[in-house]
Amino acid sequence: MSIDRLIARVLALRNPTVVGLDPTIELIPHQLFEHARGENPFERAANAVTSWGFALIDAIFDIVPAVKLQLACYEQFRYEGMEAYYKTIQYAQQRGMYVIADAKRGDIGSTCDCYAKAHLGYIELYGKTHPVFDADAMTVNPYLGSDSILPFMAHQKAVFVLVKTSNPSSGELQDVVVDGMPIYMRMAEKIKTLGSHTAGEFGFSQVGAVVGATYPTELQALRHCLPNTFFLIPGYGAQGGGASDVAAAFNEDGLGAIISASRSIIGAWKKHARGEDYAQCAREAALEMRDMLRTVAYFV
Amino acid sequence: MSIDRLIARVLALRNPTVVGLDPTIELIPHQLFEHARGENPFERAANAVTSWGFALIDAIFDIVPAVKLQLACYEQFRYEGMEAYYKTIQYAQQRGMYVIADAKRGDIGSTCDCYAKAHLGYIELYGKTHPVFDADAMTVNPYLGSDSILPFMAHQKAVFVLVKTSNPSSGELQDVVVDGMPIYMRMAEKIKTLGSHTAGEFGFSQVGAVVGATYPTELQALRHCLPNTFFLIPGYGAQGGGASDVAAAFNEDGLGAIISASRSIIGAWKKHARGEDYAQCAREAALEMRDMLRTVAYFV
Repeated sequence: MSIDRLIARVLALRNPTVVGLDPTIELIPHQLFEHARGENPFERAANAVTSWGFALIDAIFDIVPAVKLQLACYEQFRYEGMEAYYKTIQYAQQRGMYVIADAKRGDIGSTCDCYAKAHLGYIELYGKTHPVFDADAMTVNPYLGSDSILPFMAHQKAVFVLVKTSNPSSGELQDVVVDGMPIYMRMAEKIKTLGSHTAGEFGFSQVGAVVGATYPTELQALRHCLPNTFFLIPGYGAQGGGASDVAAAFNEDGLGAIISASRSIIGAWKKHARGEDYAQCAREAALEMRDMLRTVAYFV
Repeated sequence: MSIDRLIARVLALRNPTVVGLDPTIELIPHQLFEHARGENPFERAANAVTSWGFALIDAIFDIVPAVKLQLACYEQFRYEGMEAYYKTIQYAQQRGMYVIADAKRGDIGSTCDCYAKAHLGYIELYGKTHPVFDADAMTVNPYLGSDSILPFMAHQKAVFVLVKTSNPSSGELQDVVVDGMPIYMRMAEKIKTLGSHTAGEFGFSQVGAVVGATYPTELQALRHCLPNTFFLIPGYGAQGGGASDVAAAFNEDGLGAIISASRSIIGAWKKHARGEDYAQCAREAALEMRDMLRTVAYFV
């Protein structure tokens, strides 16, 4: 089961971190773009994005169990960026990392079938079955209801459904209270039902939840409601969440969540103006984050 | 203003239709895949998807004002599919069509900046500004609140926010009633506020709404609540909505909505087993739909 592979890797490295690969122009050292080659500006920039991702993976694969690739950042480099996305997934998996596609897709059922094929599954072409982008897990948006979640569960991979997101305006819809229960909690009940009977060897279901580190009270309530749901927790670091904010994400055995950080890791070089050492800076920041998380995730 | 270009084209062709280009393997005649060439199965299939899209555009551009490209269907053909997506947008625009990216993206603010750049805007590369996929409008998912909508409004293009979607499970979240008002109506109030002060020459704001043809009662209530919001209405045809179901989408002047149909147009050839005439079949079905809509959209 997909979620079990993630958990096994978290345990092996004693590190519940996922590093977000968000290739924005500001976070990639200028010289990488300059040194890259390509037949047009998009291909050239996308080649820089690929090299950058490979170097970061080389710098962290032995200490960090997973990477989360932000589709938006790859899409901004056109289809050439999507090729960089594909290559980066392949490379991370070759290095033994678990790959989460941060795609936040959601649509009607037949359309989600296509998104699920694209990011987690296979397509039949010319009489053969071909994996497409082939990530290990992906994030999903539940605004359209279970139609938009079920198709992603057809590929024996993990799905992380948005429940309580880390951004400032997340409460506009997610915190609305209905019959004494906020929408995010209602969504939690929904994914609990969807994920029942899918528990793997560590007891966690294949349907995880995205819960922001920036809302520790809600995080605690959700942990209580969803003891068998694995959490993907963005918002640590640059968005403001710290180790104490995410402590409640872990069960008594220290399992239950991976904490995601992007800018605080991949942009660590900016703090020291060490663009040439961006990968080493990322490793140092990842080690620091790991050691910090080890003080709150009790399995270590 | 982007929405004005759409409306002007609807008026010029006296047709409030948008044809959904959803390249699924079932909807594309088998022989197109066979005749296509490419260096690998994805490139070969994506070339078939491109030819198919071009032929459909050639068959309808003089009678249909807009196309809506379903990203999921292009993504399933890997980055080669995204190149087909790019080429199809360019071709449709060359033919004078208005292009809606059916992307249903939504994320935290900084990530939506990237999605907005990717699909509606520009990226700065090597000292020059380059349009990326460059559609005329796109669909947006509001689960994360206004953070996830505002970045898409920065490009002077139209945005269609999911309000009440056409799928069977849309009610799970969207119909939940809070203080006497369903969530979809609450969302309607939100986009009314976001879109205020953006009205174009026809009086419609740049922030439109996606409202399913399959829920005519809700559609009527939303039309009443949002007189200055342009509606993108999926669910006509194959999903079950008919002309009488969408009549309420139009204001007294006949404006206010475009009705989207995908399978009933692009898959019309399957009804007659006329794969070799798929483009002609699409044209015939589009003419039939136009004539049907002219009985309920009173501007014609």
